[in-house]
Amino acid sequence: MQNNGIGPWIARKAVRHADRDAIVHGDRRITYGELSERIERLTDALAARGVSAGQRVAYLGNNHPSLLEVFFATANLGAIFVPLNTRLAGPEIEFMLENSAAKTLVFQSDLRDLARAGSWATGVSRLIMVGGEAEHELEDYEQVIASGTAGAVPDLAVDLDDPALILYTSGTTGHPKGAVLTHGNLTWNTFNVFVDYGVSPGERVLLISPMFHVASLTNGALTVLLQGGTVVLHKKFDPGHVLATIEREGITMLAGVPTTYQMLQEHEAWQTTDLSSLQRLTCGGSAVPERTMEAYAERGLGFSMGYGMTETSPSATALPAHMAQHKIGSSGIKHFFTDVKVVDTEGRALPPGEIGEIWISGPNVIREYWRRPEATSEAIVDGWLRSGDLGYFDDDGYLFVTDRLKDMIISGGENIYSAEVEAVIMEFSQIAGTALIGVPDEKWGEVPLAVVQLRDDERLDADTIVDHLAGRLARYKVPKRIVFVDEFPRTASGKIRKADLRKQYAGA
Amino acid sequence: MQNNGIGPWIARKAVRHADRDAIVHGDRRITYGELSERIERLTDALAARGVSAGQRVAYLGNNHPSLLEVFFATANLGAIFVPLNTRLAGPEIEFMLENSAAKTLVFQSDLRDLARAGSWATGVSRLIMVGGEAEHELEDYEQVIASGTAGAVPDLAVDLDDPALILYTSGTTGHPKGAVLTHGNLTWNTFNVFVDYGVSPGERVLLISPMFHVASLTNGALTVLLQGGTVVLHKKFDPGHVLATIEREGITMLAGVPTTYQMLQEHEAWQTTDLSSLQRLTCGGSAVPERTMEAYAERGLGFSMGYGMTETSPSATALPAHMAQHKIGSSGIKHFFTDVKVVDTEGRALPPGEIGEIWISGPNVIREYWRRPEATSEAIVDGWLRSGDLGYFDDDGYLFVTDRLKDMIISGGENIYSAEVEAVIMEFSQIAGTALIGVPDEKWGEVPLAVVQLRDDERLDADTIVDHLAGRLARYKVPKRIVFVDEFPRTASGKIRKADLRKQYAGA
Repeated sequence: MQNNGIGPWIARKAVRHADRDAIVHGDRRITYGELSERIERLTDALAARGVSAGQRVAYLGNNHPSLLEVFFATANLGAIFVPLNTRLAGPEIEFMLENSAAKTLVFQSDLRDLARAGSWATGVSRLIMVGGEAEHELEDYEQVIASGTAGAVPDLAVDLDDPALILYTSGTTGHPKGAVLTHGNLTWNTFNVFVDYGVSPGERVLLISPMFHVASLTNGALTVLLQGGTVVLHKKFDPGHVLATIEREGITMLAGVPTTYQMLQEHEAWQTTDLSSLQRLTCGGSAVPERTMEAYAERGLGFSMGYGMTETSPSATALPAHMAQHKIGSSGIKHFFTDVKVVDTEGRALPPGEIGEIWISGPNVIREYWRRPEATSEAIVDGWLRSGDLGYFDDDGYLFVTDRLKDMIISGGENIYSAEVEAVIMEFSQIAGTALIGVPDEKWGEVPLAVVQLRDDERLDADTIVDHLAGRLARYKVPKRIVFVDEFPRTASGKIRKADLRKQYAGA
Repeated sequence: MQNNGIGPWIARKAVRHADRDAIVHGDRRITYGELSERIERLTDALAARGVSAGQRVAYLGNNHPSLLEVFFATANLGAIFVPLNTRLAGPEIEFMLENSAAKTLVFQSDLRDLARAGSWATGVSRLIMVGGEAEHELEDYEQVIASGTAGAVPDLAVDLDDPALILYTSGTTGHPKGAVLTHGNLTWNTFNVFVDYGVSPGERVLLISPMFHVASLTNGALTVLLQGGTVVLHKKFDPGHVLATIEREGITMLAGVPTTYQMLQEHEAWQTTDLSSLQRLTCGGSAVPERTMEAYAERGLGFSMGYGMTETSPSATALPAHMAQHKIGSSGIKHFFTDVKVVDTEGRALPPGEIGEIWISGPNVIREYWRRPEATSEAIVDGWLRSGDLGYFDDDGYLFVTDRLKDMIISGGENIYSAEVEAVIMEFSQIAGTALIGVPDEKWGEVPLAVVQLRDDERLDADTIVDHLAGRLARYKVPKRIVFVDEFPRTASGKIRKADLRKQYAGA
């Protein structure tokens, strides 16, 4: 039986060029041959610990070779990788471990407290720690690898339709949903990138966005590894370190978000850094601000942009750098193997120029949320993913995204779903209503601001609200400012006019 | 419903760069925009003539833009393209039209007689002629295109598992079999080429092999069109014309077979032609003779080789040029998305170094021969295609093809692999070609007999050849007899008909 999934990718590349660098992490260089052997050992070690097809293996950590090793080893076994956002709070981690029913959690030692807090009340029965001082109920990651045998990878039949990855996205209401990305979703997303952007065997990508986000893991790491290039990892984003690395490593491609690009360009070493090796800057999340684009253009650099989301692995549309100046504000054309349409409220395709909801289908689009059948049937209709975003196509087939149906705020590359935060704010019985909006911020693009209306005769101060949120939500989700109002501007049907609030507080 | 097949490929590229050249044919240049419009019109015109999903549309002609246009238009409709070898005789064409039950035949005007002779007794009810003077029962190809409407391509659900192409393989015994290549087979073969060789958006390929053979159509044309490069077509192979075109068009890639490469190198303009644009030579069919490889190496050119067959779309293994000198005689490693194994007579995988039959599986491998269930179940076992060829893997995973199963000679219990002996015979520069066959022998069962064709005006006697072989090969491998011929009996695709030779010399 042939393993058609992504598990064997590194082993196959190692047959071709065992001595080429696959990963660079600080002073450590891992060749394809070494990486392949480590993945083989880890696969064997995880199998010996009972990990089998369909099981979930969670990972909590920032960019580090072990994240990719666990991903490929898990895939070799037909098991499902669940990377967790390190910025989340304990209760959020706990929800994801419980929902995914992961039995194994691999985490980085500096996140030991979060890993313990998030996992102790769940079904996680095996903790593996990367780095740090081992403790009695933990296994040391390197010892786990050493316990496995190279070349002992079982010959499992893994199909393109089998799940490879669960990535949690926050929805408009209630709990985050686990988007189930299959081996096929990830593979076809790679082909979309190959056809629409091109990735060369000599590519050297520096990931300046964490791999627990889909774009960094798939468009950043997977595409480059499949072509036999080199992935350079920094554990934390540090603009000076990034600039120095571009020069030292001859980086050809950066994968980041607008905020990180802006911070690079504002760094004191920006002007003196040799950027001539750079050929491609990919940018996920929101659009790159014009100011940032201009600063990069002065250095001869353009951005490959696009539109997408976790559920589309993530690329739905592509705007290669050479088209960006001709189609300012556009998110590009639909990716080669992906279909995108703009529909009216009845689901009928709209002609160019007319605004409607953006629907996406294709082999890179998920077919389900993990154990959330109602959420799945709500989001996916006849194979089309309802994005919840609004936009239109121009006559040349270029998509323009005009608004987010769900009122999503993007802050420093992180998505904040206002409904999720609003729900926590509403836990105060003193509060009659609230609206979370994004307001422009020089550093983060947007930051959340909460507008709050108290019940008559009730009192509550901003600090109390912030303290409450801080214990329950990731820090980036906590409003940077809280404003109290007597009444909300409302539509005829009673909905809060968020657009009006955004205008009102934009300059605040 | 989304068309996931290859039909919409050109239209999708036209959205990206309508003005780039897709095809160059003599003085004619067809941009992606024009090609897309012609394919759309043809799709509409064929639909109006009753062509629908699953129907077969045959094409008889040499390399010409219309071949690709009919291919993509047919694919748009979910119909099946059946390109026919122009070197075949009327009865052979007739068999293929009858077996495929094609209703429509598109042919080039210079093949009018063959098209008529081959089709008159079949179910072909519609003849469309490319070029030439139209006649009453024929439709003119350009008029057919003009009759169709652009933009009227129906939104059909075409699946990757749907058949796109039937290619008849010139079996050495019995009737040809129609290998059914699906949209997915063709697409995954393209990905194999992308990952293992790389194709750039600026690629300019000159096809010096006819597109009714799989390699020229898929590895040559499809991979380059999917990347947005340019396909240059010559109707007939003419070495002087090819050399002039390389220089004039800045050709980056040639797609041919050993004989064509040899003829280029023997042409008077070889030394004076600027070959500096060439980056990649792909070679299908048999191995490139060492003499030819050396002549190209002197000009700094290497060959991308591999092993495969029509049934594998065709690439099963890959030997990129930079590896060819390290693994002389090898056909390379298995392609990235394809599995290859060497098995014993019970179908059990053999370790490196041991010779057995080569079996192939993967998304580029056919699942059936057209309407030949017994041939299918004989050739395809549990998803593995039994190639009928013999070979072994070395310790590094490189495949060495030693012989065709049916060409193996067994003499006194010893296996003789004709390819091995033939290669040694070919070391004589006076020899143009050779075929080693087994002839019955009372004592040994079979003994090897070499049929040899000398180059014009060359002389060489049998004893000299035998003396040469005796020093290099085990005694049982040395032909017991050498026969000189003026010409070999050959199949339409140029293969020597060993079965005919065996018959002829069986009693000699």
